[in-house]
Amino acid sequence: MGKHLLGCQDLSIEEIKSILNKAQYFLENNDNLFSYREAYRDKFVVNLFLEPSTRTRFSFEVAEKKLGIQVLNFESNISSLQKGESLYDTLKTFEAQGMDIVVIRLREEGILQHFSRRLNLSIINAGEGKKAHPTQALLDLFTIKQYFNDLKGLNVAIIGDIAHSRVARSNYYLLKKFGANIFFSGPPNLMAPDLENNYLPIDEAIRRADVVMMLRIQAERHSDNKIKSKEAIVEYNRKFGFTEERLQYLQSHAIILHPAPVNRGVEMDDIVVDHQQSKIFEQIHNGVWVRMAILDRALGVN
Amino acid sequence: MGKHLLGCQDLSIEEIKSILNKAQYFLENNDNLFSYREAYRDKFVVNLFLEPSTRTRFSFEVAEKKLGIQVLNFESNISSLQKGESLYDTLKTFEAQGMDIVVIRLREEGILQHFSRRLNLSIINAGEGKKAHPTQALLDLFTIKQYFNDLKGLNVAIIGDIAHSRVARSNYYLLKKFGANIFFSGPPNLMAPDLENNYLPIDEAIRRADVVMMLRIQAERHSDNKIKSKEAIVEYNRKFGFTEERLQYLQSHAIILHPAPVNRGVEMDDIVVDHQQSKIFEQIHNGVWVRMAILDRALGVN
Amino acid sequence: MGKHLLGCQDLSIEEIKSILNKAQYFLENNDNLFSYREAYRDKFVVNLFLEPSTRTRFSFEVAEKKLGIQVLNFESNISSLQKGESLYDTLKTFEAQGMDIVVIRLREEGILQHFSRRLNLSIINAGEGKKAHPTQALLDLFTIKQYFNDLKGLNVAIIGDIAHSRVARSNYYLLKKFGANIFFSGPPNLMAPDLENNYLPIDEAIRRADVVMMLRIQAERHSDNKIKSKEAIVEYNRKFGFTEERLQYLQSHAIILHPAPVNRGVEMDDIVVDHQQSKIFEQIHNGVWVRMAILDRALGVN
Repeated sequence: MGKHLLGCQDLSIEEIKSILNKAQYFLENNDNLFSYREAYRDKFVVNLFLEPSTRTRFSFEVAEKKLGIQVLNFESNISSLQKGESLYDTLKTFEAQGMDIVVIRLREEGILQHFSRRLNLSIINAGEGKKAHPTQALLDLFTIKQYFNDLKGLNVAIIGDIAHSRVARSNYYLLKKFGANIFFSGPPNLMAPDLENNYLPIDEAIRRADVVMMLRIQAERHSDNKIKSKEAIVEYNRKFGFTEERLQYLQSHAIILHPAPVNRGVEMDDIVVDHQQSKIFEQIHNGVWVRMAILDRALGVN
Repeated sequence: MGKHLLGCQDLSIEEIKSILNKAQYFLENNDNLFSYREAYRDKFVVNLFLEPSTRTRFSFEVAEKKLGIQVLNFESNISSLQKGESLYDTLKTFEAQGMDIVVIRLREEGILQHFSRRLNLSIINAGEGKKAHPTQALLDLFTIKQYFNDLKGLNVAIIGDIAHSRVARSNYYLLKKFGANIFFSGPPNLMAPDLENNYLPIDEAIRRADVVMMLRIQAERHSDNKIKSKEAIVEYNRKFGFTEERLQYLQSHAIILHPAPVNRGVEMDDIVVDHQQSKIFEQIHNGVWVRMAILDRALGVN
Repeated sequence: MGKHLLGCQDLSIEEIKSILNKAQYFLENNDNLFSYREAYRDKFVVNLFLEPSTRTRFSFEVAEKKLGIQVLNFESNISSLQKGESLYDTLKTFEAQGMDIVVIRLREEGILQHFSRRLNLSIINAGEGKKAHPTQALLDLFTIKQYFNDLKGLNVAIIGDIAHSRVARSNYYLLKKFGANIFFSGPPNLMAPDLENNYLPIDEAIRRADVVMMLRIQAERHSDNKIKSKEAIVEYNRKFGFTEERLQYLQSHAIILHPAPVNRGVEMDDIVVDHQQSKIFEQIHNGVWVRMAILDRALGVN
């Protein structure tokens, strides 16, 4: 059975710390990866993205290539999945072809857990429906720890469409392990009944937060497409967006995060995206080191 | 002119044995391919798949990368073929760009043979209409020889939609060279008039077979789509599928093959796919070594 | 700020000569690129093609892999650009992920220039609307210089749909720098008002030319699709195509170019494409060396 990364809940504090330390190591030794490339020259990874993605796939692909792993890419719309092949048989095929890791993004929830016990390769969850996006939460944590030494009692406001957000869920479970206080804000009808009921109005949420974690409006996951008209967007921005006006509530030591890509002018105004307390592009940058650590863990060397 | 692999009929017994021996060498020396990677570092291959495929393309891509060949991928739906460029000019372009090998899958039959004489690169046929799929037949042969030393007089039952199957045709011509007896079974209206008339009812075919080679229902190649309704599938499975019930006819030394991906519950029941006499995932595994041998032959070193 | 290549107008004569000299070096040292591969092993390039292309993308990809650069491919129809992400944020993301070069093809004109000042990576223009295609013009120039030592006073006839052609524009500005005389020919309503008014009827244009540069009919850029019916094609070929009959006007020392892919039988007859004075596949071949030189320049080593 492979060394999977399926969700944040499965990880012990020790394992998380070990991943973050390794990420820090890769950040500091980016020019000195020769021994990894030698060790991993014969390892194979498949990036299997059954939902469209550029940012996350490229983050993984850069991480993989820095480590010298052989990379194969598989996108949903050109595949034998078109022929009705089941995902399980696809993964068994990859195993038989000698793949060591499958990085997978998919809509269906829960089947990864089920398959993972029957496969002799490592599965890395790169986004699973509304349920989990553990590598995003780990890179968010890595970024937070660059600004805050201790997470115990840290106030984190997660703002937006919580109900549809795998980022919110993975961050919630991960940050809770380290004793952070999580507040939620956003449209009351888009809160998540499966998570803690800890709602604050947005102005108050920003005011209290050490970390403001804005979420992306996932219009594509809303069956009723309520947030697609021009008026709905202006309304959303005014009521629940991190607007220029709301910068007055932001504490001077606080940081702003977003999993990206940002809908500029919807959940965040341009001036907030590009604000000096916004760490959005640092998150992206850190994603490479964190994913290298996760790949390295899956390959089980060192 | 390149060192092509267009069809099984072109290959001499000596050439086939040489490919299989080289595949065996790669199987045994997977951890020791450094000299190949050095030799092939400046070689370029294009995987040009004008019909969707994951399994076969990945099998080639793993084989190519194990040998250290530089890989470029080209999929049908994003290409200048959209601009009306002819396939011949595309191949001439690849030649001018310095490609050494083109691995090609396409629907049109016969044009590869025609083009191959005018190109200074090697063409490897990765699936040509209903006509030929020689690398599949060679990996099937490699797998069969792991279980049966001598093919002379070996009984091979090929079962399913023979008429539309390039796998059936390539296996037929290849196995005949080694003296195997081929039986066909499946829907009588899906037999191939261009091949030997050697029909057996399915129960009898399984009973006699040393090798049961099940074929995939190619619903996408049937103009009338007869086999797409739920009832048609149940009916097909009952009449022509390798069902659990039919396991009673299977000889204890026989093996079951399928080119994959399997339509589980249509041409084969789950229990047959996962049966210990089924070698489907071994076929996939062997595909990598056999394709390495074919690539190595095309590059003409050693 | 990166070392961009956005258009031919930005390049000095010295820079152009330096690129062509380096291309010549790569042509002559193709088997001896070990030191480049060592130097560029940790460099990353994204090929971001927002319009379909095979020829140009593969030309870049071969060039990149010969130099040992790590390559990531991004095609328009499978991307988070689908989620409404702006191109600017996409490029900022690539920068944050550590990409060194973005090779980009896109329909929109002018935005590359705008973005390039704000990005810490090098942008290479691989085709920008109707405006510019500088790497094509540079490889055309490289090919011309293989046949003509001095461009001063050289007669170059550019024939076809000038109005929609980025190839025509980039060649015009590049060749003018070296003192060439440019004539245009083709349908009078497809001449470009933004370029020099130097029209000749096609027979006369061919008669005078040292270099006949045929353009591709860009039917996909014509809003009215006038050139799509069978009759329109025959008519176009007769009036404005380089037909077999028109070979009588070609000077014996002249060469024929085309950016490819050719619409055989439309802008050029088969016999002209395959004529010994046609250098179309040499252009493709030279594209690899020229693009290597441009990539090498962007990475700023040597």
